[in-house]
Amino acid sequence: MLFLTTNQERLDELSDGMKIIQCKDVFSFSTDAVLLASFTRLDANVRKVIDLGTGTGLIPLLLAKRYPKTYFTGLEIQERLADMSRRSVLYNVQHGNISANSINIVHGDLRQAVEEFGHGSFDALVSNPPYMEKGIGEQNPNQYKAIARHEIHCSLEQICQVSSQLLKSGGKAFYVYRSIRLAELISELRNNNLEPKRMRLVAPRIDKEPNIVLLEAIKNGKPGLRIEPTLAVYNEEGKYTDELLSMNPTSPS
Amino acid sequence: MLFLTTNQERLDELSDGMKIIQCKDVFSFSTDAVLLASFTRLDANVRKVIDLGTGTGLIPLLLAKRYPKTYFTGLEIQERLADMSRRSVLYNVQHGNISANSINIVHGDLRQAVEEFGHGSFDALVSNPPYMEKGIGEQNPNQYKAIARHEIHCSLEQICQVSSQLLKSGGKAFYVYRSIRLAELISELRNNNLEPKRMRLVAPRIDKEPNIVLLEAIKNGKPGLRIEPTLAVYNEEGKYTDELLSMNPTSPS
Repeated sequence: MLFLTTNQERLDELSDGMKIIQCKDVFSFSTDAVLLASFTRLDANVRKVIDLGTGTGLIPLLLAKRYPKTYFTGLEIQERLADMSRRSVLYNVQHGNISANSINIVHGDLRQAVEEFGHGSFDALVSNPPYMEKGIGEQNPNQYKAIARHEIHCSLEQICQVSSQLLKSGGKAFYVYRSIRLAELISELRNNNLEPKRMRLVAPRIDKEPNIVLLEAIKNGKPGLRIEPTLAVYNEEGKYTDELLSMNPTSPS
Repeated sequence: MLFLTTNQERLDELSDGMKIIQCKDVFSFSTDAVLLASFTRLDANVRKVIDLGTGTGLIPLLLAKRYPKTYFTGLEIQERLADMSRRSVLYNVQHGNISANSINIVHGDLRQAVEEFGHGSFDALVSNPPYMEKGIGEQNPNQYKAIARHEIHCSLEQICQVSSQLLKSGGKAFYVYRSIRLAELISELRNNNLEPKRMRLVAPRIDKEPNIVLLEAIKNGKPGLRIEPTLAVYNEEGKYTDELLSMNPTSPS
């Protein structure tokens, strides 16, 4: 596998024999992406799905395993991350974990995504967008991480607008975001005809304040938001809860 | 006390010797109002507070007891309810539970409230608005209850607009609403320069889906929403949780 990983990269195990290339100095996937993959539910008729800002490609990898008949596009603005994602896809195709054409990683800017893919070209969309406003909070000196976390290349407004343009009417969008920005997320989605339909908060413990929100919206959907019980990451003893362990993509070995 | 209650009315006990006039056939206060009073936190400099749609006056009664230096206005469109509220206030003033001028019950329509009271005339606002859209869901044949639950005399949009007009800049608004309509509530508030700042979901049990939301918004506030841990009404044994019991305004006798 010499061709697969370059200097300082690791080939980390996911569940079910799947693997992913990561690099501590560049970017590793976060709990947020795992939570979002687990929260995402695709209907049987969903054929084309896009991940806006796919990073190391974790979400399409996990979803392609769960939905083998669906075609995933992972859009990533950072060339180095797009390259790592492509090699992770290649590894999993070669080892029979996913089929050859299930994931296409595209290096590009989401602000050009509508020109690139066309209006209404996707049945569903997932995104773990940057959640820190530009100029607010300390920016990570690591440029890869800074771009993933801070609104350097795109704002929440742009993500919601592009999401709406890329989705068919009735298409579903799934987001993970910081819950401190829930009000902004909800109003930007609704400003773009994306109606919030299902929400789940995530808290460090069930008796602590939630800090993450998972949200499903439907393009041109009718108002009405189902809220699921809050997901706790840790139990009272400081260990991962059973539910979190059940969605953890790293194998127990 | 013959003058106090008319046919079929009851004088029910609240905590700390407070009492309230209720009438099963007209309207009794709900858990929603108790939750909202408990969720409401007034700063020391708050002088004037309005309750939009006060019903039997429960919220101003509970808050006047907690905040004896604050002046409360209870606006109610239904004359019969406004009259019951006034008599409840009178009872509690006469028994020394609240001071003479702490609550003023006004019979009127919130759509005329800005003309009546003036722009920016309140430091804080509370409201338990009707939560059922007109024409959706079965309307209660009891007109008193129908008006309190269905958007017959006012829409969510109107309530948010009037709230914003009545509040000073920096003033706080506190709402209780059905969580199925959270997305609409958040975007209507933000459309009217009321920024959601603090939220709490209420669920029948901690592992069940929430159905009620408590929300604090600040006029012209900066974005940033703190979400408190979900409040459970019942515990695993089907009994009220300690937290709910602690805010229950009915005395244990």
